[in-house]
Amino acid sequence: MEKIVVNEIKMPKTNNPILIGGLPGIGNVGKIAADYLIDKLSMEKICDIFSQYLPPQIFIDDEGVTHLSRNSLYYKKIDGKKEIIIVTGDFQGTTQEGQYELSYKILEIAKKLNVTTVYTMGGYSTGRIVEKPRVLGAVTEKKLKSKMLKSGVVFPKGEPGGGIVGSAGIILGLSQEIFAMDGGCLMGETSGYFADPKGAKELVKVLTKLLGIKVDVKDLELRSKQIEQITEKMQEEAINKGQKKDDLGYFG
Amino acid sequence: MEKIVVNEIKMPKTNNPILIGGLPGIGNVGKIAADYLIDKLSMEKICDIFSQYLPPQIFIDDEGVTHLSRNSLYYKKIDGKKEIIIVTGDFQGTTQEGQYELSYKILEIAKKLNVTTVYTMGGYSTGRIVEKPRVLGAVTEKKLKSKMLKSGVVFPKGEPGGGIVGSAGIILGLSQEIFAMDGGCLMGETSGYFADPKGAKELVKVLTKLLGIKVDVKDLELRSKQIEQITEKMQEEAINKGQKKDDLGYFG
Amino acid sequence: MEKIVVNEIKMPKTNNPILIGGLPGIGNVGKIAADYLIDKLSMEKICDIFSQYLPPQIFIDDEGVTHLSRNSLYYKKIDGKKEIIIVTGDFQGTTQEGQYELSYKILEIAKKLNVTTVYTMGGYSTGRIVEKPRVLGAVTEKKLKSKMLKSGVVFPKGEPGGGIVGSAGIILGLSQEIFAMDGGCLMGETSGYFADPKGAKELVKVLTKLLGIKVDVKDLELRSKQIEQITEKMQEEAINKGQKKDDLGYFG
Amino acid sequence: MEKIVVNEIKMPKTNNPILIGGLPGIGNVGKIAADYLIDKLSMEKICDIFSQYLPPQIFIDDEGVTHLSRNSLYYKKIDGKKEIIIVTGDFQGTTQEGQYELSYKILEIAKKLNVTTVYTMGGYSTGRIVEKPRVLGAVTEKKLKSKMLKSGVVFPKGEPGGGIVGSAGIILGLSQEIFAMDGGCLMGETSGYFADPKGAKELVKVLTKLLGIKVDVKDLELRSKQIEQITEKMQEEAINKGQKKDDLGYFG
Repeated sequence: MEKIVVNEIKMPKTNNPILIGGLPGIGNVGKIAADYLIDKLSMEKICDIFSQYLPPQIFIDDEGVTHLSRNSLYYKKIDGKKEIIIVTGDFQGTTQEGQYELSYKILEIAKKLNVTTVYTMGGYSTGRIVEKPRVLGAVTEKKLKSKMLKSGVVFPKGEPGGGIVGSAGIILGLSQEIFAMDGGCLMGETSGYFADPKGAKELVKVLTKLLGIKVDVKDLELRSKQIEQITEKMQEEAINKGQKKDDLGYFG
Repeated sequence: MEKIVVNEIKMPKTNNPILIGGLPGIGNVGKIAADYLIDKLSMEKICDIFSQYLPPQIFIDDEGVTHLSRNSLYYKKIDGKKEIIIVTGDFQGTTQEGQYELSYKILEIAKKLNVTTVYTMGGYSTGRIVEKPRVLGAVTEKKLKSKMLKSGVVFPKGEPGGGIVGSAGIILGLSQEIFAMDGGCLMGETSGYFADPKGAKELVKVLTKLLGIKVDVKDLELRSKQIEQITEKMQEEAINKGQKKDDLGYFG
Repeated sequence: MEKIVVNEIKMPKTNNPILIGGLPGIGNVGKIAADYLIDKLSMEKICDIFSQYLPPQIFIDDEGVTHLSRNSLYYKKIDGKKEIIIVTGDFQGTTQEGQYELSYKILEIAKKLNVTTVYTMGGYSTGRIVEKPRVLGAVTEKKLKSKMLKSGVVFPKGEPGGGIVGSAGIILGLSQEIFAMDGGCLMGETSGYFADPKGAKELVKVLTKLLGIKVDVKDLELRSKQIEQITEKMQEEAINKGQKKDDLGYFG
Repeated sequence: MEKIVVNEIKMPKTNNPILIGGLPGIGNVGKIAADYLIDKLSMEKICDIFSQYLPPQIFIDDEGVTHLSRNSLYYKKIDGKKEIIIVTGDFQGTTQEGQYELSYKILEIAKKLNVTTVYTMGGYSTGRIVEKPRVLGAVTEKKLKSKMLKSGVVFPKGEPGGGIVGSAGIILGLSQEIFAMDGGCLMGETSGYFADPKGAKELVKVLTKLLGIKVDVKDLELRSKQIEQITEKMQEEAINKGQKKDDLGYFG
């Protein structure tokens, strides 16, 4: 079989859309943000990507109906002019080769749709819960930095020290070196211990500012508060069991 | 070499056979059920599949004769009209790529034989021995559910939580998305600790009902009872050694 | 690059040579036997096989000169009529794919040289040092058994239980299923704890009988005795340190 | 995508340049030496190599600008006649296949640039800090040894015992067997515990002698001294904490 199979559903005619990557990863913040935008903007699925670089796995919904693991692209023209394409899915490519090949294929589709700018979203693991997650940035060209700074992105020197590993990094890297696109990466801070709507909320806020569109983040706020209540309760219980506050790095 | 080599033995002319997958897996229930059906229905082998996705291993029979590891397809027309094809073998593909490629190749052969419906059989690990194993189901389309329900399949919400991994999942997933076939997966409950004829027996009962054919399950019942006697004996011995009943999750 | 590169040195015109496989493996008995035969029969190297299925490694000889890891084929016509080809090397293929591809390539070369019979040599791990190692056998066809029995090969039922894994198995399996050759596998018993000339000596004795050629095994006997003296000394020292004889399974 | 993508920047017309390999490895001495030579000789980058054999990773510089992981070739004609090409990069190929493929591609480019001689640089791990690191050598042909001996390379018998693994080995091995080039490997002794400018300094001294060019090693001397001061301090602290001098193998 082809290592990657693209099932086109309804490919749009596009002028100059922006590609946004939000695949599962650290704290799942990129995927949560992507799913949220797809939902809130009522984006339409334009194609499915099946691949042997994804786990040989099917999922079962509440009706007992199966769903083969995949990546998918969604499209929307906002206010009659701003076009965005979001890619998300069940998994990132599970091998190094898969990371490159799937990212390359996504960019190939994006190229055909006249994409010249790419933003990828990912998580930046802090190892402890953060009160107010920052959104860290990286850009393919220095001149793109000022626009990102204006949208609330921070560029702390030497962070992340090890660079960006995985699809948020490699989609951007290939877009820059092979596809002559430009763009940036947005990394939402997250403890990394659980699926984290708080970091995702910050990503949505920054990205929508960057794109000049409006998306209400109330639902993500609500989900963040629910998570906070759970972790606070766990902290209290730990303290009651005699642990010192200093030992609670995991939760706080 | 070709990554997969198909040695055709005697390919039948077929009208609309049903493909049944029963490769080794959890508790080996899918393979035990498949081997049982092949034997009881006196099915004929139509082709062997050799592949570098299978372990580089040969087996030796009691006569000292070697047998290269493989998957094989068997065929039978029952009552002059019902055609079934069963695929089983020594191993599933050992890598993610191998899972996809072997499943794809099996479906390619099935397509040539005019298959439009696929049932895969697998095990659902309960982690403890179950008195009466259920057969859990999943379907590629909602409308197929009622027929499976009538055959005794259950569809508990949220089970299996992680979806279906391996050949029982991926054969079904690819049949649905790439080959435009439909069908379902049957998962026999099993402790998962040993090759389990009990779960296999339930699979055979459900599948034969679904196919509208008759296969006597006496031999599987006998093998199930032998296994039960062994595990009961082990439980008693454990109790005599002073273990509490509650500690015996492994056996019961 | 090609995944496998064959550097032909001096390919002979052959009539119906027998291919003998002796690559590194359990107790290294197959390779020791192969190297011994190549040396004693003054066989000529006919080709080198380089491959990315072998480790990315070079060796350095006592002169400081490098040698890229490889497999090699050697040829000899004995008594003006008996032709043998031996394949040995630094490593077996390191992956499942590599095991298949390298074995296939060796058989492809063998096919061109008109090989129709293949014997592979390997080790059979006993887990303890054996006084007199047996040579276990397996054959691709039952009718080949009597000749092997006459040469001293034994066929104990159910041994080896897990079949034969690695090049000794897969070369034979592919020769049988894909290349329409026949033959057998010879497994010399060995503790498996070190490179074992004793098991290799038995392989040489059995194989030369099978081929109807004469090779003196004195040097392997000498090396076996040296190894025996070392292990006996280690046993004595262990006993002097107060260990019971029963604890010495590793050495005895 | 192509498994390896070469982005040519400015390919020079060359007569008979020498290829020098210095990719990351043990103690990073090969890469440190390569980077130092590129800097001191003001070499020009002639091409970038991107590949799925390298980690799916981007790096971020102090300005927040991204850099996809890569290997690169640099070129310089010294004194109007001596031409050298250095290959270095962020990583070696991460898999066995990647080691072969990337090395092969580098040699393919080198071949087009009329390279006939190759020197690779690597580290030789001593497991303890060495006062005066030696540079060990290996050659593709015995006749090349005398020139290397004159440049200060040593050829101790049986060292390195396990041969040379990784790019320093495989580039040399493939250059010899597939590309009909010759050359040698230079291995700088290093503890292997940290990026080690001391071993790199010795590599630079030996290599420049071998090439008949002059490069001042002052900066590497300075960096070596800084490292020495740090490790001496750590030794003293360990002694003050009551550890015996003999326990300090790690640092001394």
